Amino acid sequence: MGVARRGKATYETTNVWIRGTGSVVGPNEGSGPLKGQFDRVWPDEQNGQTTWEKAEQAILSEAYDEALRKSETDWSQIDLVVGGDLLDQIVTTNFNGRTHQRPLAGVFSACATFTEGLGVGAMLLGGGGLERVMVSAASHHQTAERQFRFPLELGYQRTPTAAWTATAAGAVVLANERGPLRIEAVTFGRVVDLGGKDPNDMGSAMAPAAYDTIQQHLADTGQSAGDFDAIFTGDLGHFGVEMLIRYAQEKQLDLSEVLDDCGRSLYDADQQDTHNGGSGPGCSASVFAGPLARRLVQGDYRRLLLVATGALFSPTTYQQGESIPCIAHAVAVVREEASR
Amino acid sequence: MGVARRGKATYETTNVWIRGTGSVVGPNEGSGPLKGQFDRVWPDEQNGQTTWEKAEQAILSEAYDEALRKSETDWSQIDLVVGGDLLDQIVTTNFNGRTHQRPLAGVFSACATFTEGLGVGAMLLGGGGLERVMVSAASHHQTAERQFRFPLELGYQRTPTAAWTATAAGAVVLANERGPLRIEAVTFGRVVDLGGKDPNDMGSAMAPAAYDTIQQHLADTGQSAGDFDAIFTGDLGHFGVEMLIRYAQEKQLDLSEVLDDCGRSLYDADQQDTHNGGSGPGCSASVFAGPLARRLVQGDYRRLLLVATGALFSPTTYQQGESIPCIAHAVAVVREEASR
Repeated sequence: MGVARRGKATYETTNVWIRGTGSVVGPNEGSGPLKGQFDRVWPDEQNGQTTWEKAEQAILSEAYDEALRKSETDWSQIDLVVGGDLLDQIVTTNFNGRTHQRPLAGVFSACATFTEGLGVGAMLLGGGGLERVMVSAASHHQTAERQFRFPLELGYQRTPTAAWTATAAGAVVLANERGPLRIEAVTFGRVVDLGGKDPNDMGSAMAPAAYDTIQQHLADTGQSAGDFDAIFTGDLGHFGVEMLIRYAQEKQLDLSEVLDDCGRSLYDADQQDTHNGGSGPGCSASVFAGPLARRLVQGDYRRLLLVATGALFSPTTYQQGESIPCIAHAVAVVREEASR
Repeated sequence: MGVARRGKATYETTNVWIRGTGSVVGPNEGSGPLKGQFDRVWPDEQNGQTTWEKAEQAILSEAYDEALRKSETDWSQIDLVVGGDLLDQIVTTNFNGRTHQRPLAGVFSACATFTEGLGVGAMLLGGGGLERVMVSAASHHQTAERQFRFPLELGYQRTPTAAWTATAAGAVVLANERGPLRIEAVTFGRVVDLGGKDPNDMGSAMAPAAYDTIQQHLADTGQSAGDFDAIFTGDLGHFGVEMLIRYAQEKQLDLSEVLDDCGRSLYDADQQDTHNGGSGPGCSASVFAGPLARRLVQGDYRRLLLVATGALFSPTTYQQGESIPCIAHAVAVVREEASR
């Protein structure tokens, strides 16, 4: 079988390969610490589009183009697109379906959408029937700000714990033919809600969900954190990473040596005024599809656990006084030579 | 293998069974032509909850309870929940994750969410590794009205083509052990957008997407419409069904004998002032999980093609003058005796 259960919530996939990745980011994301490691960097946030929403659609479209080019794949060879984004009714992903015209399954776990999609895509591919699957996630700073926070024109002051939604998109072509990287295992997370209510401090709210999924993955597969060269969470940011390390420590799990975070890596906090760090589905998607995939292919990492994290609230639930349910989904990616 | 490709976009699943279904609806839905065919009917739309959003969460929770009860399954036996709803950030589905605590993969195709989830769930189960999957979709009239249209308090006049979002939830426990019904094949749809822009006439906008997926399913599997005892679309309503029959006729596909629609079936148009008929992810989910599953089990139908239909716009894209991209996903369900 191409998919086998391990433990309670983890599934090992065989013969599921990453054939190519595409990453396209905005100017802030492209000029931070990860400069030079994305496929394309936009000169400005709008890049000639007439609305921010069209810009978000366009940046995703470019990530698709890069993933197809680098994996030597045509749209006609893609059996299914599994993707999502942060906008209401995931319109960024859905509107791209008008042009690519491939069968489309929309997914949503807020900023954990990318690893949900990667997990679903890998398991569908491993299960048989499909040959190539496109997985994607995207976000845009301006569309997210006005949907979740305040109009940009207001120029309000951000809290130190507030995340900066990344203008970024990542796409991955999965295939059942040998590629440079292999998806080894998937753990779908459950909802963890410890009562956090502040949408300007989502890193703290999401840290326990990240812990829950990481420990589940390690327990299910009988591994320790040190079996990975790196464990990257999605967008816990500076505060969330600190919190996760301490929280895990209390539960006898030492993540201090291997833990890093896509959102924390994306910006220079001192120079770029981005506070807690990057967030949005496009954050982990682009950081994986660009820098992390590159490090794996180049041999800097042999085994990586990507654990995108999502805060599953809406502006309505926030206004109604609800706490913020969080989730994290984990995908283990290995360089070919390391595959079992 | 448990999943095998047929044609371009269809996948046959083996050993994927519907073990039990749960359907819970509001008072309007429970007093229409399908009266007596749902598991529970709420006495009013709020049913003791303090907000409409909490009511939507509660009706989904009850559908889960019924599906678990009827399938003799505990939450602890559910490996994965695959579900979605119409609210921004699919909070109805996600907030239920706080209580059921099972691994959760959120999906979204607007009112086509139920068959997307059923398709993904069936293929994941067929692919191996999982044993039981909960699939669900829900909607609530009041939450959807204020999100997509106008505040109810405004008392505006509805157009004849406007759909009535159903207060309804449906849930299905899929398993790899023999049950009364079997999922035979899945076709994921692509986006079809012929330029319709009126959110008060989504039946017309969605009819071509329904045609596209139905013809693809028939072509891929070498069947004709008459090979099914019924083809149920999701929520085309009175106008959309007429349009689909004519549209298909022009393309030499006669659907007139077998086509029906969950949304059209749900209300008595003359008595209930619901205009075009029911819509919302909960419409096809509850009509399948209640009346249609019942007809299959009782032998009224032997083979059913369920084709939920979705309009993938958001209020923002509508306000920006965009047309409405539509999609439909098809799932073929057969009574056990008819299985191959």
